[in-house]
Amino acid sequence: MITREWCVERDASDPLGALRDQFILDDSVVYLDGNSLGALSKPARRRILETVDDAWAVGLVRSWNSAGWMDAPLAVGDRLAPLIGAGPGEVLIADTITLLLAKLVGAALELRPGRHVVLTDAANFHSDLYVIDAMAEHSARPIEVRRIDRRELTEHLDEDVALVEFTHVDYRTGEMLDLAGITSAVQGAGALMLWDLAHSAGAVPVDLAAAGADLAVGCTYKYLNAGPGAPAFCFIRAALQGQLVNPLPGWLGHARPFEFERDYVPAEGVRSFQTSSPSIVSIAALEGSLEVFEMTDVEHLRAKSLALTSMFMDLVEERLAQHDLEIVTPRDPARRGSQVSLRVDGAYGLVQALIERGVIGDFRAPDIARFGFTPLTLRFVDVYDAVELMSRVLADGAHREARFERRNPVT
Amino acid sequence: MITREWCVERDASDPLGALRDQFILDDSVVYLDGNSLGALSKPARRRILETVDDAWAVGLVRSWNSAGWMDAPLAVGDRLAPLIGAGPGEVLIADTITLLLAKLVGAALELRPGRHVVLTDAANFHSDLYVIDAMAEHSARPIEVRRIDRRELTEHLDEDVALVEFTHVDYRTGEMLDLAGITSAVQGAGALMLWDLAHSAGAVPVDLAAAGADLAVGCTYKYLNAGPGAPAFCFIRAALQGQLVNPLPGWLGHARPFEFERDYVPAEGVRSFQTSSPSIVSIAALEGSLEVFEMTDVEHLRAKSLALTSMFMDLVEERLAQHDLEIVTPRDPARRGSQVSLRVDGAYGLVQALIERGVIGDFRAPDIARFGFTPLTLRFVDVYDAVELMSRVLADGAHREARFERRNPVT
Repeated sequence: MITREWCVERDASDPLGALRDQFILDDSVVYLDGNSLGALSKPARRRILETVDDAWAVGLVRSWNSAGWMDAPLAVGDRLAPLIGAGPGEVLIADTITLLLAKLVGAALELRPGRHVVLTDAANFHSDLYVIDAMAEHSARPIEVRRIDRRELTEHLDEDVALVEFTHVDYRTGEMLDLAGITSAVQGAGALMLWDLAHSAGAVPVDLAAAGADLAVGCTYKYLNAGPGAPAFCFIRAALQGQLVNPLPGWLGHARPFEFERDYVPAEGVRSFQTSSPSIVSIAALEGSLEVFEMTDVEHLRAKSLALTSMFMDLVEERLAQHDLEIVTPRDPARRGSQVSLRVDGAYGLVQALIERGVIGDFRAPDIARFGFTPLTLRFVDVYDAVELMSRVLADGAHREARFERRNPVT
Repeated sequence: MITREWCVERDASDPLGALRDQFILDDSVVYLDGNSLGALSKPARRRILETVDDAWAVGLVRSWNSAGWMDAPLAVGDRLAPLIGAGPGEVLIADTITLLLAKLVGAALELRPGRHVVLTDAANFHSDLYVIDAMAEHSARPIEVRRIDRRELTEHLDEDVALVEFTHVDYRTGEMLDLAGITSAVQGAGALMLWDLAHSAGAVPVDLAAAGADLAVGCTYKYLNAGPGAPAFCFIRAALQGQLVNPLPGWLGHARPFEFERDYVPAEGVRSFQTSSPSIVSIAALEGSLEVFEMTDVEHLRAKSLALTSMFMDLVEERLAQHDLEIVTPRDPARRGSQVSLRVDGAYGLVQALIERGVIGDFRAPDIARFGFTPLTLRFVDVYDAVELMSRVLADGAHREARFERRNPVT
């Protein structure tokens, strides 16, 4: 049986324990929603202030060169790259996931002109579904989008398939897919594979190079802690870069933006997928946040993440067995992201009651209570206290009192 | 003859003079590039810090509701609206100008299904040209883009024209177009009019309502001082909102984003043109910056702007007559934005030499030295000193020493 004392001891010997000091956190809160909005780190705050007070206020427009703003989308992309197994020049920080998906879907379809089908996961995050539908609908040639059960992928992979887009870690269940295996199957059928790494980057080991992955997008405001609405990133395998054409081109993706040429000539590499001015203050926050990741490595993070999620599931089974709830996240570590989701009757009320009492999780309609585990900040004792509180709330029935209000935030 | 003493006196009696104290500015610099990157105001800095230290670090994910982040794109849009003559619910803060152009061009073409021509200005900012071309190229029906001489608009307005896109104030010459007259002519021909207000918003009076304007986009990091890479805005006339469909839809433009519905149902109003999470820290900076605009009104700003640009041109003619340069900005106030551009042999060197000596202007290839006049921060004595320095540089020939380096920033 897991005790609070055991958790305290485990925290004391945790090799990642000191990293929590890199964050500005209220100790009275247990934050299990870093997969929605990551916490503020001290290096991120420092970089924001340097950018505002030095580069913007003093450097003014000169900082586009002198403070490296022009190069930031690629330079910070290069710093992010090791977290996803990408190489230099393969990652661009820009826009939002949905807009980058629009760009990559549009570009990928042009690379497979003889094929007219896009496969995606029927259980995908809905924004992915919307924008893929829209890109197909507005395409210059007829494109058919098929929303499939992802477990039946191989049955759908035929010579009509141009592109497959899946999310690596399911935002509701926390299930992690086999990135290398699926990539290989899709490529073997002659299609391109596009991964959404929203719930992967900074949370689980991702090796795009080893998988020979074609295309990916991801988020910086979740596990990468770059702040609310910070830009997304996209990955384009080096070998594909010369062949893909950005369907939403802009002046900062031009080969010579300051020549002010009348016709669009794409820049070399992933830069051509940049459209307009990058969101500099948020990219500075991301740069600061990456400093914290550079203090450790993704294997240590993964080990702690699995230990935290395993212990959470053990505690839920041990302490909450009498309640009507189900762990929907896979027990198999190879199939689990860095979150655990519970299907509970009254999930909305449970999450609200926990938040009111200092344990912040997330609700996903209709009946999922979702808990994200950020190994950079979370302690084992936090996990213990969260389940302890959950046990009390469920026993008291406090979760049945909250009324559902449709204002709950964020993916 | 204008003297420095006269300028000092004029500053002392300037009703907008006190607003300069709202900004964090180095007094040793004369900043004539607020039309590329606006300066940092104290309220903007305060709002950034509140957002980072209170809403993000302490509020964490709860701030999407409690700090108003979910509503910020529309709420701050409503605060910006008076500067462009828009009404409540007509302005959304999002993305970048080029991406918003893509959305509005795509949506507008669907509203005129029997017409296949888009007209734009051959001298337009190149990013506008690129993305309009791309939207036409990838359209599901054949669309022809005609780049015309804007002075010949009426000759091109026929029943094939679906949409006209012009930039209100020319980024190179500073010429301001007749917003109401052109809108009326375009609408009279049955087409939709889309304005790019990049160099207008916060700089010159814009009355979209009086002009009956259909669609507009604009920038917040120039005259609106929201910081490097801050998001853009779009305007959709209330009466058109129910008819326009965002071609790049995302979950935050859905009528019920937190229902996680499988099919896209657009939100009501301009919100449906939001795709993904808004750039919260930059929107906070914009909110702070708008506080400064709310301390005055656009008529006072315009009066001072015209006085500054008039005096600059007078001084250039008075003091630099012997040099080979030409004022390319219209003398007529009704046709002038808030900038003055000079065509100079050695424009790049001139701008570089001025920057090195503390007067920051901008170069636009091939031969334009561009100077922006921000009435919130600029003093008459700054204008005097800038021309004085220019006179010395041109007399010394210091501008002939700078070598052209293709890294000069920003629109």
